[in-house]
Amino acid sequence: MTVTARTIVLAARPVGKPKPSDFRMESAPLHDPGPGEVLLQVLWLTLDPYMRGRMSEGPSYAAATELGKSLPTEAVARVLVSMDPGFQVGDVVAVHDLWRDHMIRKGSELRKLDPLAAPVQTALGVMGMPGMTAYTGLKHIGKPKAGETVVVGAASGAVGALVGQIARIGGARAVGLAGGAEKCAYVVNELGFDACIDRNAPDMAAQLAAACPKGVDVYFELTGGAIFDAVLPLLNPFARVPVCGTIATYNATSLPDGPDRTPLLLRSILTKSLTFRGFIVGEFWGDAPEFYKAMAGWLAEGRVKYREDVTDGLDRMVETFIGMLEGRNFGKTLIRVAE
Amino acid sequence: MTVTARTIVLAARPVGKPKPSDFRMESAPLHDPGPGEVLLQVLWLTLDPYMRGRMSEGPSYAAATELGKSLPTEAVARVLVSMDPGFQVGDVVAVHDLWRDHMIRKGSELRKLDPLAAPVQTALGVMGMPGMTAYTGLKHIGKPKAGETVVVGAASGAVGALVGQIARIGGARAVGLAGGAEKCAYVVNELGFDACIDRNAPDMAAQLAAACPKGVDVYFELTGGAIFDAVLPLLNPFARVPVCGTIATYNATSLPDGPDRTPLLLRSILTKSLTFRGFIVGEFWGDAPEFYKAMAGWLAEGRVKYREDVTDGLDRMVETFIGMLEGRNFGKTLIRVAE
Repeated sequence: MTVTARTIVLAARPVGKPKPSDFRMESAPLHDPGPGEVLLQVLWLTLDPYMRGRMSEGPSYAAATELGKSLPTEAVARVLVSMDPGFQVGDVVAVHDLWRDHMIRKGSELRKLDPLAAPVQTALGVMGMPGMTAYTGLKHIGKPKAGETVVVGAASGAVGALVGQIARIGGARAVGLAGGAEKCAYVVNELGFDACIDRNAPDMAAQLAAACPKGVDVYFELTGGAIFDAVLPLLNPFARVPVCGTIATYNATSLPDGPDRTPLLLRSILTKSLTFRGFIVGEFWGDAPEFYKAMAGWLAEGRVKYREDVTDGLDRMVETFIGMLEGRNFGKTLIRVAE
Repeated sequence: MTVTARTIVLAARPVGKPKPSDFRMESAPLHDPGPGEVLLQVLWLTLDPYMRGRMSEGPSYAAATELGKSLPTEAVARVLVSMDPGFQVGDVVAVHDLWRDHMIRKGSELRKLDPLAAPVQTALGVMGMPGMTAYTGLKHIGKPKAGETVVVGAASGAVGALVGQIARIGGARAVGLAGGAEKCAYVVNELGFDACIDRNAPDMAAQLAAACPKGVDVYFELTGGAIFDAVLPLLNPFARVPVCGTIATYNATSLPDGPDRTPLLLRSILTKSLTFRGFIVGEFWGDAPEFYKAMAGWLAEGRVKYREDVTDGLDRMVETFIGMLEGRNFGKTLIRVAE
C-alpha cells in the first residue's frame, strides 16, 4: 500500500497578515513503515495563534520554520499500519506533527487516546496543550485566590475560556473580553464568567473598569494591544501577569506610534510591585498527569465547558488560520482532516 | 530647654528636575518630650533616589508629600532628653523621619544602634534600607546562581554596589554600569565587579554585550532608560528582573519619542520566559534579622565594601539631592547634620 501525504509548506514569509500565497500544498508518497514505525491517517489538526510566530524570523522561543518546510501543529490520527507491537490498526493517538494528512512516525512518539473517555479531538483543546496552558499558567504564575479578580482577553477562545472557568472553580471572579455580543453572551451564559466586555466597544476600557470594581489581581495575557492598555491601570498592587501570547500584535509589521510608553510600564511594575512572567507550556510538562486528572474530573462534573470551531478539510487550513488571527473563530479552532 | 527644629518642606511640586525654589527651610520650637517620648538631635540623614517619586502626584506605592509638608528620609540621631526608660541621653538610634535636624519621637519608634559595632551612619546604607533592598531583591526575585551573570546600573551607588558584591559572594559574575571612568575603576578595583561599563560611552550597548558573553541572567533594575534598552536584548531565557527603581526617568516630564516599544517588551517577556517583578524593601521586612547578621559578617570579613558621599549641613541637603538625581554623588549619599 503506497500512501500519498499532502503537506502544507511555507512558501514565503508572511509580511503582516498572512496571505494564501504564503503557503503551498505539496504531495509526496510515504515510504512503508519500518520496524517500530506506524503509518497514521490524520483525523484532526489544531490551529493556535502561537503558530504565527514560527512563520517569522527573529528571536523567539522556537526557531522559525524554514521556507519550503511544513509548520508545527498537533494532530489526532488513526493507525493504518503498525510495525510497533504497542499499537493496533484503528488505534487513535495524539502526536506533535505538521500540517499534513498522513505520516510515518515512531510508536514511541505517540500518545494513545481512549475514544470512550472523551471525544478524541479534545486532546487538541481542553484536554491538550491549550488546556494545560491555562491550567499551568494559573497554577504557577497567576495564582488567583478566592475573591480575587482574574481578567483574560480572547475569552471565547481555547485558552481564555479555560482561564476563566478554572479561576472560578478556585473561587475567583472571572472577567473576559471577546469580539462581539454573541461571543460575550456565550462567555457569560455558557462558560459562567462574571462579566464579558466586547473588545471592539468604543468605551471598552470604561466598561472593563466598571466590571472590575476591586481592580485586577491576575491578568492572563493572551492578546496585548488595546486590551493590555485597558488592564494596566486596573492592576492591583502585587498583581500577577502570566504572559502567554500577544495575538493583537502578531501580524504587526511595525511598532505603534509614539510616545514610547515602555517607561510607563516599568514604572507601573515598580510602583505596584507587579509580576510579569512569560511562559510556554513546555516548561510545565511535569504537570501533565495532574492536569489530565483535574480536567477530566471537571469535564465529567460539567464544571468546565468548551466549544469547537470546526472546519472540514486540509485544503481550508490556511484560510482558517488567517481568519483565526483576526478573531473569526468562535471556540477552539480545529481542522477535521478525515472522518 | 526649648529646642528649635529646622525642617525642609516641599514648597512646590518639581516639574522635571527639582530646583532649589521647590523647597523651603522652616523653623519651629519643639514641645518638651512627654512620657514615652524622646528628644533627638539628628546626626545623619540619607538621600535616596526614590524620594523624587514622593514629590510628584500620581499613582505610586506611597502617597505624594503634601505641599508645605516635609519629606521622608531615614535618620541617625542622638538622644538629648529621654522620657522613655529604654533610652539614655547619648544613645544613638535609627528612625524613619523627615528632612529636619531635631525631633520628638516615641521610644517605640526608634531602633538603638551600637556605635562600637559599625559607624552609625551605616544604618542608612550598607546596614540599612539600601543594603536590605539589594539583599532581598536578589534573594527573592533575582535568585542568581553560581556562574550566572548579574547586571546592575548605578553600580557605584548605595544599592548597585551591594547588588554586585552580594551576587559575587554567591558565585555569580557581576557586571556594572556607572557614570565615568573614575566610578568604573572603583567598581572593578575596589568592589570587585568582573566588569564595569561607562554608561555615557557612545558604544555603551556594544561594550555591555561584550562584557556579558553568556548573556544576562539577572538584571537588577535601578535606572531604566538607555541601560534598560541595552540590557533587554541580552537577557537569557528565564532571566529575572527585580524592578527596584528607574532613576533615569524620575525627572522626565514626558515620555520618550515613539514608536511605542511596549509590544517589544511584552514579546521579549513572552518569547524568553522572562520574569519582571517590582518590589520595595518594605515587602521583606521579615528578613531584617537575617540580613543584619549576613551583612555584618561580610563587612567584618572584608567581603563587602562601601563608599560614602558625605555633605555637611542640612542647608545643603536640597542641592545634594538635586545632584544625586544627576549622578553627581559617588557612593551612598549622606547628609552629616551634626558631628
